[in-house]
Parts: sequence; C-alpha cells; structure tokens
Amino acid sequence: MIIVMQRHAPKEDIERVINEIEKNEGLKPMPLYGTERTVIAVIGDERKLDEHHVRSLPSVANVMAVLQPYKLASRETKHESTVIKVKNATIGGKEIALMIGPCAVETEEQTRLCAQAAKKVGAKILRGGAFKPRTNPYAFEGLKEDGLKILRAIGDEFDMAVVTEVMDLRTIDMVHKYTDIFQIGTRNMQNFDLLKEIGKSNKPVLLKRGMSSTIKEFLLAAEYILANGNHEVILCERGIRTFEPDTRNTLALDTVPLIKELSHLPIIVDPSHATGKKRLVAPMSKAAIAAGADGLMIDIHPNPKEALCDGDQALLPEELFVMMEEVKKIAEAVGRSI
Amino acid sequence: MIIVMQRHAPKEDIERVINEIEKNEGLKPMPLYGTERTVIAVIGDERKLDEHHVRSLPSVANVMAVLQPYKLASRETKHESTVIKVKNATIGGKEIALMIGPCAVETEEQTRLCAQAAKKVGAKILRGGAFKPRTNPYAFEGLKEDGLKILRAIGDEFDMAVVTEVMDLRTIDMVHKYTDIFQIGTRNMQNFDLLKEIGKSNKPVLLKRGMSSTIKEFLLAAEYILANGNHEVILCERGIRTFEPDTRNTLALDTVPLIKELSHLPIIVDPSHATGKKRLVAPMSKAAIAAGADGLMIDIHPNPKEALCDGDQALLPEELFVMMEEVKKIAEAVGRSI
Amino acid sequence: MIIVMQRHAPKEDIERVINEIEKNEGLKPMPLYGTERTVIAVIGDERKLDEHHVRSLPSVANVMAVLQPYKLASRETKHESTVIKVKNATIGGKEIALMIGPCAVETEEQTRLCAQAAKKVGAKILRGGAFKPRTNPYAFEGLKEDGLKILRAIGDEFDMAVVTEVMDLRTIDMVHKYTDIFQIGTRNMQNFDLLKEIGKSNKPVLLKRGMSSTIKEFLLAAEYILANGNHEVILCERGIRTFEPDTRNTLALDTVPLIKELSHLPIIVDPSHATGKKRLVAPMSKAAIAAGADGLMIDIHPNPKEALCDGDQALLPEELFVMMEEVKKIAEAVGRSI
Amino acid sequence: MIIVMQRHAPKEDIERVINEIEKNEGLKPMPLYGTERTVIAVIGDERKLDEHHVRSLPSVANVMAVLQPYKLASRETKHESTVIKVKNATIGGKEIALMIGPCAVETEEQTRLCAQAAKKVGAKILRGGAFKPRTNPYAFEGLKEDGLKILRAIGDEFDMAVVTEVMDLRTIDMVHKYTDIFQIGTRNMQNFDLLKEIGKSNKPVLLKRGMSSTIKEFLLAAEYILANGNHEVILCERGIRTFEPDTRNTLALDTVPLIKELSHLPIIVDPSHATGKKRLVAPMSKAAIAAGADGLMIDIHPNPKEALCDGDQALLPEELFVMMEEVKKIAEAVGRSI
Repeated sequence: MIIVMQRHAPKEDIERVINEIEKNEGLKPMPLYGTERTVIAVIGDERKLDEHHVRSLPSVANVMAVLQPYKLASRETKHESTVIKVKNATIGGKEIALMIGPCAVETEEQTRLCAQAAKKVGAKILRGGAFKPRTNPYAFEGLKEDGLKILRAIGDEFDMAVVTEVMDLRTIDMVHKYTDIFQIGTRNMQNFDLLKEIGKSNKPVLLKRGMSSTIKEFLLAAEYILANGNHEVILCERGIRTFEPDTRNTLALDTVPLIKELSHLPIIVDPSHATGKKRLVAPMSKAAIAAGADGLMIDIHPNPKEALCDGDQALLPEELFVMMEEVKKIAEAVGRSI
Repeated sequence: MIIVMQRHAPKEDIERVINEIEKNEGLKPMPLYGTERTVIAVIGDERKLDEHHVRSLPSVANVMAVLQPYKLASRETKHESTVIKVKNATIGGKEIALMIGPCAVETEEQTRLCAQAAKKVGAKILRGGAFKPRTNPYAFEGLKEDGLKILRAIGDEFDMAVVTEVMDLRTIDMVHKYTDIFQIGTRNMQNFDLLKEIGKSNKPVLLKRGMSSTIKEFLLAAEYILANGNHEVILCERGIRTFEPDTRNTLALDTVPLIKELSHLPIIVDPSHATGKKRLVAPMSKAAIAAGADGLMIDIHPNPKEALCDGDQALLPEELFVMMEEVKKIAEAVGRSI
Repeated sequence: MIIVMQRHAPKEDIERVINEIEKNEGLKPMPLYGTERTVIAVIGDERKLDEHHVRSLPSVANVMAVLQPYKLASRETKHESTVIKVKNATIGGKEIALMIGPCAVETEEQTRLCAQAAKKVGAKILRGGAFKPRTNPYAFEGLKEDGLKILRAIGDEFDMAVVTEVMDLRTIDMVHKYTDIFQIGTRNMQNFDLLKEIGKSNKPVLLKRGMSSTIKEFLLAAEYILANGNHEVILCERGIRTFEPDTRNTLALDTVPLIKELSHLPIIVDPSHATGKKRLVAPMSKAAIAAGADGLMIDIHPNPKEALCDGDQALLPEELFVMMEEVKKIAEAVGRSI
Repeated sequence: MIIVMQRHAPKEDIERVINEIEKNEGLKPMPLYGTERTVIAVIGDERKLDEHHVRSLPSVANVMAVLQPYKLASRETKHESTVIKVKNATIGGKEIALMIGPCAVETEEQTRLCAQAAKKVGAKILRGGAFKPRTNPYAFEGLKEDGLKILRAIGDEFDMAVVTEVMDLRTIDMVHKYTDIFQIGTRNMQNFDLLKEIGKSNKPVLLKRGMSSTIKEFLLAAEYILANGNHEVILCERGIRTFEPDTRNTLALDTVPLIKELSHLPIIVDPSHATGKKRLVAPMSKAAIAAGADGLMIDIHPNPKEALCDGDQALLPEELFVMMEEVKKIAEAVGRSI
C-alpha cells in the first residue's frame, strides 16, 4: 500500500499514519520525504490494513493498494488453473463446457426437447430456471420446486448434470436436493449472505457477474464463496450495463483473458442474456471461445415464440445445431475440444 | 403498446400478433398498414401483455410500451403525494426528514454521541448499521443483534425513531423487533425475495436505489413492496455508477424531480455514500434539498478517523452543525422546514 | 509517481526503471525492496515522466501518479479563484453569472424576445448558437454568420455580452468579430487543434465538459487553452452519459465542488442541455447554485413549440421569470447575488 | 413515428400535432383514440419530421421513431455489403484486412521494421500516426509532415497502402498528398465539420467509433461522410467507456454483428487501443474475427519500451507473428482468409 500525504501535511499527521501501520504485526512503514509531498510505503501484506480507514486519517491525500484485495481467488495464491468435474462434465480443462437449456423450465415436454437438442451438440450440463428473478413483480416467476423436479428428472433421463439458480437463502436446501451446480444470478452477486451460505455447501457454484460489477468486485464475490470453504467456483461473464441502448447489455469479452490472468478459476460466457437478441448469440459464442472462455451458457427453446421468459434470446434447436458446428471449428482453432 | 413489424412481414405473422393481443380480455389491436411497415397499436391496459413475449413473436421488429410498467408506485394511480409518519418524524411532507447517525453502530458511547449531534440539528430519525454489506469478505460486518440493541436503546434515550439495514431474509424478524424503519441497501434493491417479505411487514421501508439501476427498475423494486401490501416506501437516491473515477458514485440529483413526477412516494438523498468524500457532503446536501428532496441521510462519527467503516465520508458533529445551518437556509428558500 | 514492479522482477529490469528516471533532471528514484514486490518512488516533478512510457518498461506491474497531470489549471499552482470580467458581467465572483438565450439564433425577433426576458431576470450575457453541431446530418445547422450578426446586434441593443459556439477552426476569426466569449461545445472538448487556436485568442472561453469526459480530462482540456496563453477559461458542467434512459444525460453536480477544490477556474452549469427536459430545468438550476456553481446557462425561447432546435428543453419567458425568483432565493441562501 | 399524447390531452393539442404532420408532403397522421391515451402514428417517411420538434409540441408525452435516422449507411437502403479496394487491399470482402504498424511514426528505421513485420504476416495496409491527439497538452504530438513523408516512403518501399489520422481541417490537403486512407479518430467522431470536408474527398475513410458513442450516433457520423459524396467508409470499433477501471476501454464486440445487420459498411476492430494492454491484444483479435469483423488494426513497435506513444499496447514483431498464426486459424474457421 502506498499512502500519499497532502502537501504541507503536519509532522504529527505523518507520524500518526506511521503508528497506524506499525500497529499491525508484520507491516513496516517506509516514509519518503519528497519535494512536493511525503509518501509512505507499507512493506508487508497490506491486506491487513483497511484502505478506507487509512484514507480517513488526517492529511492523507490518496491511498493506493499494491496487492489485489482477494487472496484465495488470485492466481498469485494458486498458480495452476482450477478444473471442476461434475458428472461427465469438466469445466476449466481442455474441453469446452456447454450449459444449454431453457431459460425457464416450463413443462416436462419443453425441457425434454431442450435436453435432447443440448445433448445432441455435446452439452453435458442442462441449464434451466425454476426460480426466476423478475424486475417486474407481475411477471412469471418460475415453477419453483415443480420446475426443479422436472429439471432433475430430465437431467437424469439424458444423463446430464443440471445447473439452476438459487435466489433465496431459504431454498438452498431444496435446490441442493435437485441440482448439481448452484447458479448465483447477476442480481445476487453481492447478496453476501447468500454467497456465504453457498460457500458452505458442497456443490460447485456458477457465479454470474453483477451487471455493473467491476472485475475486482466479481473476484471478491467469488472470494466470499471460497473463504467459506467451497473451492469450486465457476465464473460467468454475462454482459455489463453501458450507455448503449441497442443491446440489453454489452458483452465484455476482454474480461475473459483478464480474469484468466488474475485468477485460477474457470470462466464461461452467457451470450444469450448479455445481448438479449438471438441473432447475436452465434457470433458472440464464437467470439467468447476465441477469447479463451472455458464454456458457454446458452438459452434454447423448442418454440421461443411461446416462451414464458426471454423468448427473444432463445435459439431454436435447429439454430443451435448450425451455431455449434461453427463454434466447434473455433474451439479447434484455439486448441480446445467440444 | 406499439408493435412495429419488420418490413415485408408476411400476413400470417401480422395476424399472429393480432390474435395474441385479442387473447387478453380488454385489449384491442389496431393495425396500421403504412408504406414502409405495419404497426399494431394495442388499445387497453397493455400491462397485461408481456413485452418480452411479444418481442419474440415472428416478424416483430420492435415493441414500445406506452404505459409505465409499475402501477401502485405511479402518480397516475395515486395522485396525491404519500406522507409517512414514524414516531415524531414525517417523511414526504413540508418538513425535511433527517436520518443522521453512524455508518455502523460500533459502541454505545459512539452511537450516543452521534444521536446527540443528530438531535441537536433537528433529526428525528437515527440511522446506524448493525449488519454491514461488505464487498470484501474480510472486512468488518457489523455488531449484528448487539448493534440493534444499542441503536434501539439510544433511539429511545433521545426519543428518536431508528432506521437500520436488513440484508438477510432470516433476520427480518430480529430487525423488526428493534427498528422503526427497515432499510434495503443498494446491493439488495433487486433481491426480490427480500422485497416480497418486507412487503408483508407493517413497518416503513427505506429503499435505496441500486447503484446501477434505472429509474424504472427503482420504481419496479418499490412496486414489489407495495404489491405485497406495504404502502410505506421511502425512496433514496444514493448515487449511480459511472465512468468517473474521482467520486465513489455520481449523485444523480435529476432523479429527485423526475421521480416526483412519476411517483407519489417520498424521496430522500444520501450524499455520504454517493460521494464517499466528506468535503462533498455539505454542497450535495444543499443541492439535494434545492432539487426538491424530502430528506437527507447523513453519516456522522464522533471520531471518523477511528471509524470501522467508511470513515472518509463521515462528518464530525461540529461539521454537521455548520452544514445544517446552511441546509436550513436552503430548505427555507424552497419553502420547506427542518 | 509510484512504480510497482512485478513479483520476482529481475534485477536488471529494476535498474532499467531507475536509469529511466535518472535521465530526467531533477528526478530521483527511491527503490523500496518489499517482501512481496519492489516499489520505486519518484521524487521531484513527476510530470516530466510519461506515465504510458514508464508503464511499458519491462516488469512494471503498475504506475500511479501522485500529482495531477495539469498544472496551470490546478489550484495548487494558483491558489486564489479566477474571476473573469466580460462587459458588465463577472464570472467566478460573488455574483451568479447568467447566460440566457435561445439554443439557436433563428430570427431577430426571436432573439430580441429572448434577450428582453434574459435581461429582465438580471442576465448580463446573452447565449445563442449560430453554428449548431448536429448528430444528424439532415438537421438544422444554424444561421452561421447571419446568426452571429443578429446575436451581436441584439447583444448591443440590450447592452449584454454575448457567448456563442465556435466549432470549426476556419471560423474562429469570423466568430471573434462578433462574440465576447467563445463557447467550445461538448463534442469538441477534445478537439485539440481547436483548443490550441482558441488558446491563442484574447477572449474568454466557455469550455463545456465532454459528455463522457472524466474530471481529469476536462481539466486537461482547459490546460490546453491555458498553456497557449489564454487564461480566461470558464468551465461548464452539462451532464454526462450514463445508462439512464429517462434523462438525456445525468447532471453530475458533484463535479462543481470537486472542481472548486482541484482548480481555480470558475464553473457554471447548463441544466437545459443536461436534462433535455424543461420541467427539470428549474429544480436543477436551484441545485446547481446550492452546490456552489458560479453561474447558469439556460435555454429559452419565446415559443419553444416552434423552435428549430431542442425546443423540448427551452423555457418560456414566463417560466424563466418564475424559476429565477426561486433561484434568487437559493443564491441568497448560499451568500451569492444575482 | 409514433407520437404518444399525454393523458387527457385537449383536443386542440391533438389537432395541432395532426396539422404539424400534414404540413409535410407524403406524411399522413393516423390518430388512435385509446382508453388511456391518444396515440398518433405517422404513415410515410418519418425522417422528414424533426423528432425533437415534435417532442416539444403541447401535450406530447413521448415520441418513438420507427425508422433509423440514417439512410445512406443503412442496409435497408443498400442491401449488398460494401467492399472497398485500396491498392492491393480489400476491405469488406472474404479477405481479412490487416492494418498494422506503429502507433506513432517516430523514425524511418522504426517504421521500416514495423512495415517489414506487418508485411510478413500478410498486412496490405500500414498504419502510423503523424498527428497524435493527446489528452495531455504536454505529451508528444507526432512528427507531422515529416511523419507523413516517412509513412508514405515506407509504404511505397513495401508496396503497402497507408492509413493515417487527420485531426485538423487545415491539414486535410497535406494528409491527402501522402495517405491512401484517411483515419478519423475517436475524439473526432462528432467533429462534424471535419466529417463534412472528408466527405468531399475522394479517398476511403476509416471512421473510429467515439469512445462513448451509441451505435446510432456512430452510423450517423458515417452518414455525414456518405451524404457529402464519399461512399467509402470503413467503420472501426475501438472500445467504449464503461465503469471498469481494469481495462482502458471495454471492447464491445457485439457491435460487429449488430452493425453488419444495420449497415452495409465494412467494420474492423482495433484491440490495441481498446484494451491498452498488449497481453489482451491476441485474445481480442481472435474474438473480433470470430465475431465477424472484416479486419484488424494493430499497434506494433520494434521496441515498445522506447515508444513515444502508448508503448504498453504495442506488440513486438515476434509477438505479432505468434498471434497471427492463431488469428489465421480463426479466420479459416469462419470462412475468411488472410
């Protein structure tokens, strides 16, 4: 940590900061008396100091962290990439992980048709929402436990793992009974109590990036889960909020290589929710794999025009087949397999 | 709702949309066959139609809502402004509501000193966090029930109402026991299960705007609470996330008059968390009142340098006194009282 | 400047950075060999070093500037606030500067009616566009020199100074002939050649913030003008681009006190262009003055419904009169006069 | 265009809007008297109406455009994709166009080494800046005409076309003498006078997206050039400004397929300036081609550590060679060639 003092900071304020640092075992202050300002460097693991607290000390002009605030999620802590295995699927390895299925589980028949199509293109994980977070209180909220049952049954029928969203602390146990992977949605990325509880569970977690979260906040949210004992976290880039009105969100694919550098955790991409437009799903899926993503999460629907939720972003099975042919070629071009 | 069809949309697709509209009782489609495109207007309460669903119908190019998606929060539904009374305080009336206190409750002594200062400037509501949402899993999380007890005791000592954040569904009952007003924080604005539960409680709710929520989403979050039966919602503008690195968030004061137009609910402003810089709290408090805000939420601390949380934004009691003298003049200038 | 080296940076890379610093007269490197990383502090006026260049040196992990990159615009360089006098008007003093008039000069009659109304509320500066930057190539672009002539004539008739936008380097001389203050519009804030030429002129400049510029970039744009010899720069906050669709831009009033701290230059606010909605102009004008702005720039039109440009944000003269009564009270409440 | 009137709009205001529409030859108003509001649809080419003007008419609540505001840039106007030929290069065809070279031309030797590397990987266009727009007035601004001479000479030596930025109207003729393609930089995307002048030239134009421009504004900027007679416009996505601090800008690759749908103009991607980090250039180049981009613009430098400009984003020749091997495979995977 580098602490920049204000110009003409009185000597006692400088000493105050120095004392504050020395209170922490293992930390050593290194004051530099410059021509314009005094700067105090902190030698040691600066994460012991609360940046906000230091910033509020008298005559402190600026505080700059040198280390990332997360530890367990950091590649500096764990150099080799994390590979997660769930049933037949592998996430974070050479194989591209595919999580495909309906946005919301609506009927057994709809879910079966989706699973069939997903399986056909090589997906080993079936996605499907039973609890749907809805901006509008009057919109369809999912089939809840009935949806979980359908998802589990169809997953078993096709020998696929399943992933589904958990929104509410009170339903963790229920969801746990049916799912193979917990999904934390974009609106809950900073629901810290939920993160902590999921961190105590023994199933992998797909953590979606908050739609206006920085990469640092995203990795800190993962850190919450890791710090509670669950080391199987799969990150998911799903678009961020920008000024552009012509897409639902802006898919920030530069997040993929950047996170690969900062963290050992696998990262997949959800182009369906990011763009909200089915015509953009294929190009952005290809781009995601080219950028180094470990997998894709794709919405499909046997009949998107009847979908109860986000139909405009769901691909038809035939569209999925065409797209996956192209995605496969990209995967090969970057040395990955599907 | 206005539905714009693609150019050269086949007749059957146009009829399909028309049928979809007619399925809903009270809705009437009005097709307009233009030179460039066909446009279908929907006559009646369009909120019966799911915009996403219509958007996914074949040959639909664009869908534009005419009505706002929220009803109970809308000024069209309830013309007169909502005024909320909590103990001696009134929110939404002529009087400016002041919610002042420590960011986090740390000790009885600290809370008492804050309440004393708050009371002195006319605040009738004491704020103080017992559960603190923290981006970093290793940061101070609040005193929990011990904090609630202190807050309640000090509130009673000074005959002030208290407001405190509830983050977790499982602690609603506990918080209910101690608080007069529930606070929903910015990170939980779209925690829909929490909103629904709070909507069933009988105490007023202070709903903070999500840091990257649109005004429409903000009012839809309020709608969740109202739709569950709790009509006492106080909105709080607390800054939005923008590209500017020199303030924590950008305080969007234009939200205040805009929401006054769209909704009957009272709206207050939190300049402390929005700016994250104590030197900006006074000018932005004055600006908020000048813009028409119904109240202010302000962080103070008897000794911000020792604060366990966000000390760099907390005012000292003496700074609060100076500031409130100025705020009082602004309140008078806009015909309000403190 | 603080230079953070990568972990395990080889000794020769550290020496390389040290040499690079020493190349600059007056700069002294101060290496700190920490447990995790080496950090090199630069003692002296770091602005001699190009941050981008340093960042590209081998094994450099991060570079943090300690000083602001602008000098002449900084309050550290010039402590007392700059006050600019133009004809009868003063900008940056106790008096609130009012720049009021039509968005675009359309006719002599329209401009006269605007000037009359502006004068009536105490404005000493008449605004009016003769060259209009238009996003759409097919939109009205202003009356050009004919507009300048009308503006000048009406300004003289009412003994008011005039301010008008210059967009094109080739018309600087023409605009110079008619105007008292040059306006640089939001789209030209980083048109560096224009800034340099205007920096050589002898008339004050109203510099509008780029709609997605940071405060640092805004002050660096002012620095361009100052560095070319023109010290009379008036800054203008006019809203920034955010994700919010319900206002044209988000008026970032926290910019006002922040810039007052960082710079000695006066800053005014343009609520008309920021919000794009006439109903928001009055509350945001009051808020701007309460936040400490040195003036306001307001669009009016004798008949906004016939306006050739941005009619939906222009106030009617009667609306201006009502609003200015309220603004005057706010000005008094913050110790300013109109 | 769809015009939504306010609730209870008086009859004369509705008639006023109808009259306003009828003033335009070829436009026909279609009023729809609904239960909640009156909506007026405009039949005909709505671009004859000024949306802002309509919006300011009395009792108008909202105005929604049905058609895009640009014509010449629209794929509805010209269905087949535009292919531009410059010397040996083709932009917009099956071949991926590569524009590679130094950020700034510094010396003949540096430019030659860059051209050599660029040529080796198949680039037919040499990029290089002679005029550099710099946020900081004290930074290196380019070699100007000397730089243009070097660029031209090296371009000829390697039989490559050259592209270079023109920033200032007064230097269009000078730049025209040396360049094959004019580049308009991100900060000048809305410098409308520059766009108009370039629109009158007879050389292709590479138009970079403004760093906070919407896609609609980007295509309207292209429309300025097209409307002035120059039909050879190459669009370039180069990242947009978001809240994320860890990349310089966010590369919005969804822009590529979206623009392909809306416009017939070719679009390339500049990952060097978008990310500002050389380690992200290779993954984002691959992603860009996978998303359907028609080309890449890449910064290289024989010795980035000595670069006078943006060295941290420039690849070394060897890094370029490695990257292009991978990009070539992606190009093949999507049926393109290099």
